[in-house]
Amino acid sequence: MSEHFTPPPGAFTRSVAIRFSHCDPAGIVYFPHYFDMFNGLIEDWYTYELKHDYAELIMGDRFGFPFVHIECDFKIPSRIGEIIELTLLVERIGRSSLGIAIVCHGDGLVRLRARMVTAMMSLETKKPVPLPHALRTAIEAYQARTTAALPA
Amino acid sequence: MSEHFTPPPGAFTRSVAIRFSHCDPAGIVYFPHYFDMFNGLIEDWYTYELKHDYAELIMGDRFGFPFVHIECDFKIPSRIGEIIELTLLVERIGRSSLGIAIVCHGDGLVRLRARMVTAMMSLETKKPVPLPHALRTAIEAYQARTTAALPA
Amino acid sequence: MSEHFTPPPGAFTRSVAIRFSHCDPAGIVYFPHYFDMFNGLIEDWYTYELKHDYAELIMGDRFGFPFVHIECDFKIPSRIGEIIELTLLVERIGRSSLGIAIVCHGDGLVRLRARMVTAMMSLETKKPVPLPHALRTAIEAYQARTTAALPA
Amino acid sequence: MSEHFTPPPGAFTRSVAIRFSHCDPAGIVYFPHYFDMFNGLIEDWYTYELKHDYAELIMGDRFGFPFVHIECDFKIPSRIGEIIELTLLVERIGRSSLGIAIVCHGDGLVRLRARMVTAMMSLETKKPVPLPHALRTAIEAYQARTTAALPA
Repeated sequence: MSEHFTPPPGAFTRSVAIRFSHCDPAGIVYFPHYFDMFNGLIEDWYTYELKHDYAELIMGDRFGFPFVHIECDFKIPSRIGEIIELTLLVERIGRSSLGIAIVCHGDGLVRLRARMVTAMMSLETKKPVPLPHALRTAIEAYQARTTAALPA
Repeated sequence: MSEHFTPPPGAFTRSVAIRFSHCDPAGIVYFPHYFDMFNGLIEDWYTYELKHDYAELIMGDRFGFPFVHIECDFKIPSRIGEIIELTLLVERIGRSSLGIAIVCHGDGLVRLRARMVTAMMSLETKKPVPLPHALRTAIEAYQARTTAALPA
Repeated sequence: MSEHFTPPPGAFTRSVAIRFSHCDPAGIVYFPHYFDMFNGLIEDWYTYELKHDYAELIMGDRFGFPFVHIECDFKIPSRIGEIIELTLLVERIGRSSLGIAIVCHGDGLVRLRARMVTAMMSLETKKPVPLPHALRTAIEAYQARTTAALPA
Repeated sequence: MSEHFTPPPGAFTRSVAIRFSHCDPAGIVYFPHYFDMFNGLIEDWYTYELKHDYAELIMGDRFGFPFVHIECDFKIPSRIGEIIELTLLVERIGRSSLGIAIVCHGDGLVRLRARMVTAMMSLETKKPVPLPHALRTAIEAYQARTTAALPA
């Protein structure tokens, strides 16, 4: 039943410490917090992996990245004091949309797994905008180097 | 593109006022808050529609209702000061699992739409438990009376 | 030790249902949620009591109401399933600042009690602005009618 | 008006990256998030500085650390993309209570400053308990080594 996971070499992975504030009266992470962690992971991926500062994209360039679709399977709950790992993989690069997979894992086992589609939009016009060339190139390069190692 | 929605007669619907605290620097609801609203809707549905007090189920009977699967399509963003409606429908009743659809709408248009599967578990044994008979009967009755009006 | 509280006649009071999502692994409200409740109370007070739509003040008029000072005494914890009452009283009206007291109570006993000072500012200039005349008048009238009944 | 701050040598300080999710439609941190950051800082201080694992104190030993009193002065707002520093200092060690000061700073200037009093309690009896000897000793040592350097 348990699903093993090893991030592909070069995949963007960040640790999150499960805190008191993440947990509910049942002692496990209250699930909306995972989505907040996912958003934080995506921010850091833009800034530190793609080298496009997320804050600048939002506040400077006035882009937004609203989610269009999310799906998530929850396998193993997480508890206060645990450290979990979040790995981001690119599934699909559209004209203005981006399909991302996030795997949350610990001790080599999948805790939860999400697929999320974001659209890039202008906060001024409220319309979708095509991914800027430099950003698209960076995302394509990330996708290429993190899927090369996947079995055919 | 816009999708109309009218809740079936008898469907459990609650209004939520979009607050300052729900909204992000782009001025729209930060998406994890929707999941928190959904959980609140489910709580109220148990307590006020099914007449099974949610707090008592958790703290008294020591049941938990973790999510197993969630999927969500986001159509129209919501902004501070708006009032949105959340309607809960039952899709599938399993042995210990429950498939729920939540439609978030305003002015007759779908804002977002989610499908969520929860499992009922014991907080003591950490194992799934079958839905108690009275609860199952109440859920079945709700499902019957809210789908009767749906077109064949 | 327990402190009784009856809101003055005419005081703005709202009920809040304590939810699963408010509570921590100790089964009581995780304290930052109280501050979120306070902000929601203040929003509703502007909109429904003072008849100055809070969303319009923020998004239309581009005012902000950042907190300058907060102090809070926690007396009795609250638990999932409880309904608590929040009452807002005006303590001091400055040129651009406002001193508010919020009493959170249940069954006539104080649960927690906060004093908060907000400043009114322009989101454009990032500078404090004097309270607009109509708003000031509404706040003064509220203060007058809710303190008249307090013992001298 | 601006207040300089340099943490005393040895003071426990952690950086927090201000995220999209921390910020409100005015583009600055929504204030309840600061209290959540403070709680996280306190957790890490117990675990990494005092060497008393916070998760174990809560879930293993069944202690709770509810806040009794909080006061906070907000000086400079923080925005998405900024990195702020949180420094924890001990103000007072009581029988079961603890007075903590948290200074949030950036670029040597105070952003906000809080004083918080927690009580240590048993989650079983719901009563205050005296600080365990080893924990008290660790807190006293921390207080001693971080105030030695303060000007007389």
